[in-house]
Amino acid sequence: MPLEFASRLKNVETSAIRELFKLLGKPGIISFAGGFPDPALFDVDGIRMATEQVLRDNPGPVLQYGATEGWNPLREALSAHMAKKGIEARPDEIITTTGSQQALDLIGKTMIDPGDKVIVEGPTFLATIQCFRLYGADIVSAPIDENGVKVDELEKLIVEHEPKLIYLVPTFGNPSGAMLSLARRKRVLELATQYQVLVVEDDPYGELYFGDAPPPSMMALSSEVTGSREWLAYCGSFSKVLSPGIRVGWMIAQPELLANAVMCKQFSDAHTSNLSQAIAAQYLSLNRLDAALTVVRSTYAERSLTMAHCLKKELGDAISFSQPLGGMFFWARLTAPDADAAEFAKRAIEKLVAFVPGAPFYATNVDRAAFRLSFATADVGKIVEGVGRLGKAL
Amino acid sequence: MPLEFASRLKNVETSAIRELFKLLGKPGIISFAGGFPDPALFDVDGIRMATEQVLRDNPGPVLQYGATEGWNPLREALSAHMAKKGIEARPDEIITTTGSQQALDLIGKTMIDPGDKVIVEGPTFLATIQCFRLYGADIVSAPIDENGVKVDELEKLIVEHEPKLIYLVPTFGNPSGAMLSLARRKRVLELATQYQVLVVEDDPYGELYFGDAPPPSMMALSSEVTGSREWLAYCGSFSKVLSPGIRVGWMIAQPELLANAVMCKQFSDAHTSNLSQAIAAQYLSLNRLDAALTVVRSTYAERSLTMAHCLKKELGDAISFSQPLGGMFFWARLTAPDADAAEFAKRAIEKLVAFVPGAPFYATNVDRAAFRLSFATADVGKIVEGVGRLGKAL
Repeated sequence: MPLEFASRLKNVETSAIRELFKLLGKPGIISFAGGFPDPALFDVDGIRMATEQVLRDNPGPVLQYGATEGWNPLREALSAHMAKKGIEARPDEIITTTGSQQALDLIGKTMIDPGDKVIVEGPTFLATIQCFRLYGADIVSAPIDENGVKVDELEKLIVEHEPKLIYLVPTFGNPSGAMLSLARRKRVLELATQYQVLVVEDDPYGELYFGDAPPPSMMALSSEVTGSREWLAYCGSFSKVLSPGIRVGWMIAQPELLANAVMCKQFSDAHTSNLSQAIAAQYLSLNRLDAALTVVRSTYAERSLTMAHCLKKELGDAISFSQPLGGMFFWARLTAPDADAAEFAKRAIEKLVAFVPGAPFYATNVDRAAFRLSFATADVGKIVEGVGRLGKAL
Repeated sequence: MPLEFASRLKNVETSAIRELFKLLGKPGIISFAGGFPDPALFDVDGIRMATEQVLRDNPGPVLQYGATEGWNPLREALSAHMAKKGIEARPDEIITTTGSQQALDLIGKTMIDPGDKVIVEGPTFLATIQCFRLYGADIVSAPIDENGVKVDELEKLIVEHEPKLIYLVPTFGNPSGAMLSLARRKRVLELATQYQVLVVEDDPYGELYFGDAPPPSMMALSSEVTGSREWLAYCGSFSKVLSPGIRVGWMIAQPELLANAVMCKQFSDAHTSNLSQAIAAQYLSLNRLDAALTVVRSTYAERSLTMAHCLKKELGDAISFSQPLGGMFFWARLTAPDADAAEFAKRAIEKLVAFVPGAPFYATNVDRAAFRLSFATADVGKIVEGVGRLGKAL
């Protein structure tokens, strides 16, 4: 007799993307498939310096058990860091998490009962869909355009489904790259307050803008919409700006939600690595982040422009897309009737170029013609060559 | 209207221990309350060396996203490390976790449906009870003595409750300090196989023996009981031997359980800090662990003997206890009829000495006379003084 697993596992399927990723080992392949930042842009010297300092100055507490809420010097540094972004949050209004993926998991554990409705963008971050489904969420996709979620449609879905929470990546979302406009940000805050529904703002990409800075986060704007802060949880991450490998994210929310998330975290992993947290705090104190981000922004901007140029040249009217204003992704669609991006992805792999078909990013109302291209890890030469191969595959 | 949280939160209560811990800040207090290792015994030089090496030799992959299953050099090092303990496990039969607390969480997420029965020792690790209750487990305590869980009683409970799994800390368990005998280890393996029930062996303290090494782990013994390995999951941890602050544990189990745990981990925290994992792997390669453990064992052994001596001298027949053969804890009981260790703990705090009353460690069949004393972090002088204060409090 085999083991009998929990029934919640039936809510998720092995990701189609994982299967695709197994093919990426082919020699000579150019990959636009990943969601990884470029490791060549990590500020390794700064991280080395911060690490050496914390292990020299404070080894005992760093290597000992720590508080579930987080390493206090990091919570203080994050409070100051968030203030620069217009978010007023005391250190005790911030908890640290093992990557922002854990913040999502804690929100799921804290909030979601089996059968609860959750509204997400269509398309949205795949791991959020799966994470919430493991807690039994019934997930509904709200339609988006290049200005983010369509707020009138969102309101209709709120009224229809009475969701437990709404999950949005308002700035340069994965996979869409879309940026929620200022007016829509405020409207979402009004809807949250009016319908008394929790909005989760996931913001891993907000620093990766190419031109002007994006509008303030909804958390920053919540001071302009009376009562809205109570209905807002903000998830931040060092993964795209410092290092994903150290696994440090954070969450800002109202006290009761935060206390319950901490209780759940106590039994999830006790606390996040003190060493990682101390390194992040020390790194922030070195005042190197702005300079590092300047390099990341200009590098990704150049790659993004190159990819846009090549896509137009090589694929022309066969695809449509919007030029992203930041982040790491192009979200495109095949314009031919009944086009299937999964088929296109298979032909592309044969031509030694990889990307991710878009279907898995939809919880409902799947668009099979859509696909995602990351420009973060391929240099300009690879982008030119890789998009050329895409043209041949088409 | 306040937020409406998931109903699973109603299964757990804020720990009575947490409330007690708030009192520990009193100046001059001697604490036997914690479950922490002594940070003065951490091999800080070795950890510094390992950290410097991984950030010098391999910064890109260490700081980038990693595999959910774990950092491969660590999985290989753990395979060799486990072989020295008699456990044959290929690297792909081992996954790494964010502390062994996360291994417990992944087991809960993977295995437990609301209403499922789980058998644990009475008393057992408090965070396991709460972790499994968050997944809806109905937890039953099996009685123990100084040789660990009573296997005849365990069999009766298996027959009565048909549990989804059995959780045991066979070696120097927290809080009991008990050591499951060799004969009972084999009997548990037979019961697991006969009744086809998963046994989780949590082994954070196995290296902390004071005299002879303990019997082999049940995972090591599983080769002697045909078919038993299929019904066994082993959780290991660096927290008590290297550093809890870096949060690295591991789990060994059969392939299907491991694959499901990895799927759940992908949506829990994506992966454990690569930096922490790489440091642990590099540290193992430095061949310093045995020397570090020798110091830890002799230090804890001396403290344990001192505490035993002082308890007999200062409290005499008012308490009963067994001398632990390893680990970090004395488990004692007040011998007076209707004695309440929680009352005793309050009087002790007034005398500036702290310990943890035993009631919260029982899922069922609470023993209110029991209490836990840790000898890990107080030096010999503090132990003499602190137990003296206990005598006065009594």
